[in-house]
Amino acid sequence: MMRKTRFVPEWTETAPPRQSFRSIVKYGSPTAFKHPSAKWFQMIKDEFSLRDEDFMHKRGEGLTQVRLDRPLGLDSRHQERMEKIVGTQNIATDDYSRVKYSYGKTTEELMELRKGIIREVADLVVHPRSKEDVQEIVTYCNQEKIPITVFAAGTSVNFGVRPSKGGITLVLSTHMNKVLEVNEINQTARVQPGIFGPAYEEALNRAPELFGSRRRFTCGHFPQSFEYSTVGGWIVTFGSGQASSYYGDACDLVISQEYVTSAGTFKTHDYPATATGPKVNDIMKGSEGTFGILVEVTMKVYRYMPENTQRFSFMFPSWEAAVDASREICQAEFGMPAIYRISDPEETDRGLKLYGMPSIVDGYLQKKGFMPMQRCLCLGNAEGEKHFARNIRNQVHRIAKSHGAVSLTGYPIRKWEHTRYTEPYMREDLQDFGIVIDTLETSVTWADLHRVHQGVREYIKNRPKTMCMTHASHFYAQGTNLYFIFLATIDDPDEYRSFHRGIVDRIIQCGGSPSHHHGIGRLLAPWIEEHLGSEQLAVLRALKRHFDPNGIMNPGGQLGLDMIPRKNQG
Amino acid sequence: MMRKTRFVPEWTETAPPRQSFRSIVKYGSPTAFKHPSAKWFQMIKDEFSLRDEDFMHKRGEGLTQVRLDRPLGLDSRHQERMEKIVGTQNIATDDYSRVKYSYGKTTEELMELRKGIIREVADLVVHPRSKEDVQEIVTYCNQEKIPITVFAAGTSVNFGVRPSKGGITLVLSTHMNKVLEVNEINQTARVQPGIFGPAYEEALNRAPELFGSRRRFTCGHFPQSFEYSTVGGWIVTFGSGQASSYYGDACDLVISQEYVTSAGTFKTHDYPATATGPKVNDIMKGSEGTFGILVEVTMKVYRYMPENTQRFSFMFPSWEAAVDASREICQAEFGMPAIYRISDPEETDRGLKLYGMPSIVDGYLQKKGFMPMQRCLCLGNAEGEKHFARNIRNQVHRIAKSHGAVSLTGYPIRKWEHTRYTEPYMREDLQDFGIVIDTLETSVTWADLHRVHQGVREYIKNRPKTMCMTHASHFYAQGTNLYFIFLATIDDPDEYRSFHRGIVDRIIQCGGSPSHHHGIGRLLAPWIEEHLGSEQLAVLRALKRHFDPNGIMNPGGQLGLDMIPRKNQG
Repeated sequence: MMRKTRFVPEWTETAPPRQSFRSIVKYGSPTAFKHPSAKWFQMIKDEFSLRDEDFMHKRGEGLTQVRLDRPLGLDSRHQERMEKIVGTQNIATDDYSRVKYSYGKTTEELMELRKGIIREVADLVVHPRSKEDVQEIVTYCNQEKIPITVFAAGTSVNFGVRPSKGGITLVLSTHMNKVLEVNEINQTARVQPGIFGPAYEEALNRAPELFGSRRRFTCGHFPQSFEYSTVGGWIVTFGSGQASSYYGDACDLVISQEYVTSAGTFKTHDYPATATGPKVNDIMKGSEGTFGILVEVTMKVYRYMPENTQRFSFMFPSWEAAVDASREICQAEFGMPAIYRISDPEETDRGLKLYGMPSIVDGYLQKKGFMPMQRCLCLGNAEGEKHFARNIRNQVHRIAKSHGAVSLTGYPIRKWEHTRYTEPYMREDLQDFGIVIDTLETSVTWADLHRVHQGVREYIKNRPKTMCMTHASHFYAQGTNLYFIFLATIDDPDEYRSFHRGIVDRIIQCGGSPSHHHGIGRLLAPWIEEHLGSEQLAVLRALKRHFDPNGIMNPGGQLGLDMIPRKNQG
Repeated sequence: MMRKTRFVPEWTETAPPRQSFRSIVKYGSPTAFKHPSAKWFQMIKDEFSLRDEDFMHKRGEGLTQVRLDRPLGLDSRHQERMEKIVGTQNIATDDYSRVKYSYGKTTEELMELRKGIIREVADLVVHPRSKEDVQEIVTYCNQEKIPITVFAAGTSVNFGVRPSKGGITLVLSTHMNKVLEVNEINQTARVQPGIFGPAYEEALNRAPELFGSRRRFTCGHFPQSFEYSTVGGWIVTFGSGQASSYYGDACDLVISQEYVTSAGTFKTHDYPATATGPKVNDIMKGSEGTFGILVEVTMKVYRYMPENTQRFSFMFPSWEAAVDASREICQAEFGMPAIYRISDPEETDRGLKLYGMPSIVDGYLQKKGFMPMQRCLCLGNAEGEKHFARNIRNQVHRIAKSHGAVSLTGYPIRKWEHTRYTEPYMREDLQDFGIVIDTLETSVTWADLHRVHQGVREYIKNRPKTMCMTHASHFYAQGTNLYFIFLATIDDPDEYRSFHRGIVDRIIQCGGSPSHHHGIGRLLAPWIEEHLGSEQLAVLRALKRHFDPNGIMNPGGQLGLDMIPRKNQG
């Protein structure tokens, strides 16, 4: 009997051509890839009624060179002035740079770029060397009313770096990417905003060698985009890391900030708490570049004690049981796990397909009543002082078991850790064959969790041949974050847009927020006034007028501050 | 041999006369008193070179009836309108009410009232019944440009309730003092701002009986003023409770708020975290009545588990050792103690005199090298889940011992708990004999703690015959709060003012903040611009203009928003 050779698509394995659209589209390292597993490939074919032939011809690969053919919208005297401030070598006006630094990683952006569609771009790309450079640039641009958009890592998923009005894009990650000080007494680090996650974490881990400290430290903030996002970006978009339940969200890690604005430059104080009026330090967080430019920040850091980490994984018999146990864990006051996540039945099943579960384990679980499309996976760990972490692990075990869960040991969470930053790479392979994978996240209170989960799932699953995987991550005593991932065969940006907008509508109708940790950008701005209410948006607009009377800071719809009507979206 | 009878001053033991100045001055319950112990009385005489005779005649007792003899500064049509909104029974214009609801518990206020000196007062005292009443009142006052000052408990220590421009004082504690909902799923309580600490805590403790919940809850916020302060006051002044190191400061307990402002009424969302632009929920905290009126708030609550409390007390050989150990405790990541405080040598010594320490214990300590005016007392407890609290106790023991401390068992902290709310009562006795006791608190980073402690002590002790006791309480990984208490024979408000202002100057010079948890009010407003910087104060002023374009909300210097020059202070 001859064995049939299993078909494997020619997933891309080569770096994108230099200066190509694809090199802008591609996530992360140009030479890193992650392909769907054989089981996942089979699952996708089954779900979407696709055949091997549908995976033979890639489309919209975006392999051509970026050509813009648009004149600079800025007078040459402005360019000369910028060259004077930062030096000629820190200015770019070539087509590729103008496009590259004008794009984030929003699904729509990627879909369009692959087709060669280019939206608004910067006229001038400027790489400031210091906060003094930034100050000179802002002063000048404010006088001359030149728009400024800030770019650091470009992992925005909501058009957060789109230069809607052209002008200057300031790239903060080129030079302003250093750890300036580790203060061991205060357990803080003073850093520049353009530093990437790994460089920041490494500097803290190596603090004894680099800063002469006695201890090693960790930043505590590990978003999925960790390797390709920056400290400044975390703060101005209200980011949240995978271990946020213990370490806090990005905004909780900020002790003080220094901003350059059109209304002046200021640095807030380093006190951990104070009662001197509403905190400007808080007012600036999450301002998404619309108030001013973050040029320096003092962050809380934590002791680096990986030897204390306690890992756990469970299978719950149902989503309800997983949610109830998680709420109990968050409210029982024994401290919080660091990483903690529960997957709903569909995510659990598809995740097991992607990463594999030994059939003997599956058989055992099914015999015990943990059935596919009912059972829910829970992964997590506890960090901090040794006994503290151990007690969390013990308490989590006790609570999980009392809700019918069975322990899967620390193996699944260890396996998850290896892939924790690599999921976004799969988008590339899927998009090559017209399949979109996208995510939306929302804040929910415990009381509203099931309503939002069911309502949004219903909407997504109502579309034929659409997968919907959901997990909860980022936990609080009062609620959590629901993270929806959908997969569908959508190649047309308009079709995508309409489906995506419908999901956002449904999230908000059900009581979720438009964003838990990706921010609003321009993508979600059309919902912001309705969501916050016009009285609250008026507060943000009053701040905008104060900080940026000429409307030059990240203008053109960001956060909904200078763009109102819902119908003009997209 | 005849034994000489020990002289005891005739400390006041009777409630103040009805409608007297003293009835406004008196802290807490009219019939509650706390007198200096015999040893303290002796210590005071020794320190201040006073004799028994100096304690025979009370001065400035303020026993006379309040007489104001000032016409109402408000047109009668305004009064009629207010009567229409809230009903005649909820309006007062009598002299006593106008004065009583215009005064807090600032030392200067007490000194002056005892002498019959009356500063600015309200024209009309209004007791709104609901947030709808408040909304009608604010709308009307905004149209008519009538100043509104909010009064709830009146424990402000910085002229926070002074109606500097007259107008209407809204008393929120009369009717708007209910717990509206306990949400067991979200572990939150929705409350009206005018509820006092004990009523709030009791409702949470009795949640099963009152709200049908399964569990009992606690609010986690226990300031010294707990019995005579309100939930709304905690939030709008950035208050902090004695157990804040674990439960968080008042601002950390707030999930969402509803405000009535001249720019509209709004309620923020109940999400525990969200990424939808700068958080208006945070912007309103600490606004001290200058932006609008807090009419409802949803607070985090905690499980009521007093059976898990672990108590500890230590004596450290020195202030440096106590500070180092405390920093290690806060940074070691095993969770935080709830109550935690360390007293400096002078406070330790005088505290032992006030509350007594068995001489056998003292002898033992001195033999072991814990010497008076060097040794430092540490008191605290751990709360939360049983094993979590036990581990904190164990870790605190380990760290304290490694810094040379000796355990004093749980007895001293238990003793402290009995007096935790009663300290302010002593002011009355001391002021009767021309001795002022006053407190100032400041935020410090760990790195600046000693500089602030030494610098401020130096200033206070530079005044002859002046005691200065300091403790640190309210701990964070990045710093703490220093609480300075001074005692001096000062009877003249001008002399007091000049000394007090000098302390504030010194605090700020040394790197402390003007306030950690009492707010700014009008007393500290003259320092705010210099402290925050004009760029940051401009942000608060922009918000003020937005919320209150007609300048009616708590006008006349509060938070420094509508009063600038330092020289006009006082």
